[in-house]
Amino acid sequence: MSGAQQGLFARLKTDAAEAWRAYTTHAFVRALGDGTLPVEAFRFYLAQDYLFLIQFARAYALAAYKAPTLVEMRQAAAGMNAIFDIELALHVRLVERWGMSEPDLVRTPEAMETIAYSRFVLDAGMRGDLLDLMTGLAPCIIGYGEIGRALAATASGQAAHNPYRDWIAEYAGDAYQQVVGDAEAELDRLAAGSLTEARYPRLLAIFERATRLEADFWQMGLNAVAGG
Amino acid sequence: MSGAQQGLFARLKTDAAEAWRAYTTHAFVRALGDGTLPVEAFRFYLAQDYLFLIQFARAYALAAYKAPTLVEMRQAAAGMNAIFDIELALHVRLVERWGMSEPDLVRTPEAMETIAYSRFVLDAGMRGDLLDLMTGLAPCIIGYGEIGRALAATASGQAAHNPYRDWIAEYAGDAYQQVVGDAEAELDRLAAGSLTEARYPRLLAIFERATRLEADFWQMGLNAVAGG
Amino acid sequence: MSGAQQGLFARLKTDAAEAWRAYTTHAFVRALGDGTLPVEAFRFYLAQDYLFLIQFARAYALAAYKAPTLVEMRQAAAGMNAIFDIELALHVRLVERWGMSEPDLVRTPEAMETIAYSRFVLDAGMRGDLLDLMTGLAPCIIGYGEIGRALAATASGQAAHNPYRDWIAEYAGDAYQQVVGDAEAELDRLAAGSLTEARYPRLLAIFERATRLEADFWQMGLNAVAGG
Amino acid sequence: MSGAQQGLFARLKTDAAEAWRAYTTHAFVRALGDGTLPVEAFRFYLAQDYLFLIQFARAYALAAYKAPTLVEMRQAAAGMNAIFDIELALHVRLVERWGMSEPDLVRTPEAMETIAYSRFVLDAGMRGDLLDLMTGLAPCIIGYGEIGRALAATASGQAAHNPYRDWIAEYAGDAYQQVVGDAEAELDRLAAGSLTEARYPRLLAIFERATRLEADFWQMGLNAVAGG
Repeated sequence: MSGAQQGLFARLKTDAAEAWRAYTTHAFVRALGDGTLPVEAFRFYLAQDYLFLIQFARAYALAAYKAPTLVEMRQAAAGMNAIFDIELALHVRLVERWGMSEPDLVRTPEAMETIAYSRFVLDAGMRGDLLDLMTGLAPCIIGYGEIGRALAATASGQAAHNPYRDWIAEYAGDAYQQVVGDAEAELDRLAAGSLTEARYPRLLAIFERATRLEADFWQMGLNAVAGG
Repeated sequence: MSGAQQGLFARLKTDAAEAWRAYTTHAFVRALGDGTLPVEAFRFYLAQDYLFLIQFARAYALAAYKAPTLVEMRQAAAGMNAIFDIELALHVRLVERWGMSEPDLVRTPEAMETIAYSRFVLDAGMRGDLLDLMTGLAPCIIGYGEIGRALAATASGQAAHNPYRDWIAEYAGDAYQQVVGDAEAELDRLAAGSLTEARYPRLLAIFERATRLEADFWQMGLNAVAGG
Repeated sequence: MSGAQQGLFARLKTDAAEAWRAYTTHAFVRALGDGTLPVEAFRFYLAQDYLFLIQFARAYALAAYKAPTLVEMRQAAAGMNAIFDIELALHVRLVERWGMSEPDLVRTPEAMETIAYSRFVLDAGMRGDLLDLMTGLAPCIIGYGEIGRALAATASGQAAHNPYRDWIAEYAGDAYQQVVGDAEAELDRLAAGSLTEARYPRLLAIFERATRLEADFWQMGLNAVAGG
Repeated sequence: MSGAQQGLFARLKTDAAEAWRAYTTHAFVRALGDGTLPVEAFRFYLAQDYLFLIQFARAYALAAYKAPTLVEMRQAAAGMNAIFDIELALHVRLVERWGMSEPDLVRTPEAMETIAYSRFVLDAGMRGDLLDLMTGLAPCIIGYGEIGRALAATASGQAAHNPYRDWIAEYAGDAYQQVVGDAEAELDRLAAGSLTEARYPRLLAIFERATRLEADFWQMGLNAVAGG
């Protein structure tokens, strides 16, 4: 695909290739894929991801406030509703299977890594415009889809004995992949409206920083069992 | 009812009695009730109210961003969804009956009165906290319910020949009255959490100003046919 | 001047020519220039302009929060400081000459016109980025400079018997004209960074709306004496 | 001192005693005091603190936007000006003495710890009101004053051979201690206006979280030399 036809996400990913690789092939991700991730690392991650989802819903609310058209307002509202109606419920089910309850989650203090990524994106979005906000969310939304697909394509990622098989299947599944496709398309639509070459480096800085903070989020899970 | 038991809305309404009366018994309201409102005044009002609803949805999105708990986030999301799924559609149906289409509405420029009320509330909410925001929205949410009930209780408000009978019935109806009750209850819940006597005058100032801007919004409808 | 070399402000002014003319040659402006403006109209305007300046300072604070670089943060801070250290003091002196005091001003309720323009710009800026915010402020900052220059170039605008001579001289003066030049330059710098043709219509909509709200602000002064 | 007379800061500090102690007596702080802090740890800290100051200036800008009165707007503007006119310049001088230049600083990527604290406070302030914002800034503003005073009261903290003597003297000095006193007084003024017992736990949560993020900020300096 030529540069001119390349979507914004593909361009950002290419230009932040090292950070993207560190995030999407992090040791935590590889251990999810081969089923060797310590349960405690996953539980810690899952509780923090629940807390992150609440901030993520706030980010979609902010997107609805910022959206310049009704079409984009409705899209942001749909994203927020999906978190409230689907993702939080899925997390609670997953969490219960791992021996925690929703009240446990709500009482869990946010880790620094959770705060860093969520508040960075919220502030980047409030400071800039909707494109800044959605660029900050892209490593999360689109990256999870890429990770899910990659892990689901491996034997161990689908193996019956892999305790993280359901997590992988969720993000590799059609429903989530549709969310990913929508997010890529929205980035392109927003970029068509307001991306200039002079602005691109600032957007890349948001994307790269958010990607690194996602890698830190995985590392947080490993640190939880490493006495870190 | 003693002062101690009085809800926040009742207290605000009492303390801004003159502005409240000017708003809820405005000549535009009385003319809706007896069916004498010129069609052009209503059409102008309806188109502006459609544009206002879009800003109102942004205010609910802001409320979801600002909400300190999941309960309040979900409530704000429900308010936003109600606008997208119910109220905008109702407006489009009403508007079509009066000879306009949704594309006409979207093309209509916002009147100064529409801008003044909507942006005043959005800014008061961003500047302050969720209680400031919901106080600014109260004259709209709760006032329309009071006006609907009052007009529906009159013979002319229900009369088959009153061209505004459906509008009146909508705001007097159980579904909308439930919204009103929820809004009053949320104000009380927020006030229980963060209202002090020292703060009250600032809250009253927001309420009174918003109420006067609602009266200006009715006047805008009359001005549209008065060569104003 | 070719389109390619034309600055953003000049382009916006050309494309909103009718609104710009209605604002900069409003009857209130012409009456300032020939000295026939009723004193009561000017006093009403001046008190509202004082209240507007406070919101204007908030807009500069927002610009400092939103600024993507230290250079732009310092520029926004300088704008805010100029309001606090110079313009508010000038207004108080002017106001005292016309028989009012600062406490009178602070007690004056904001008129709908004051609310509409100030909150429209604040919300446009919070919703979008720094370019949206500065575009909304441009009719005020740059327009006053153009009006000041135009009136100062007339015999009656400089005449000793024109009671509004000092007001005209202030906005025609070198200090204020420097502010105007800086604002035009900053618009161009921001546009170089993030203006696309696809975005331009949205920017023009902000500019045109803000310009019309400025004309409404003049009209407010006339209405104050017309029983309006 | 009875609870009724106790200021808000003293109350928060008491209720977050363990976090406060961990922050103000962190190993990094003790090593500053006895002069044993590795130079590389200090240099890393100083560069990040420069980047933090820029976000801190944004927080003061946000405070000016949010301030409910002119008095508080001017106070916030003064805080922002102090960063631009004094603190950034001091940092640059300090940094140059340690072999770095301002361009080096601007190019330094923000560490996760810098992002976490700064964006947490900015978001807490945007989400809530001015009291939420100033509560989030209090551990930084007031804590540095307490640390400076404590270290300056020790022999090693004043010793000619302590390479961090100037840093200590700056925060122990009258000018900075005045800033601390002003910040405590403003917290009390804001609390008098809008603190309720029902709200206090939410405020404490912001304070405690911000205090822990400050301790993480010190730890970041140590990690920089520990291969961490």
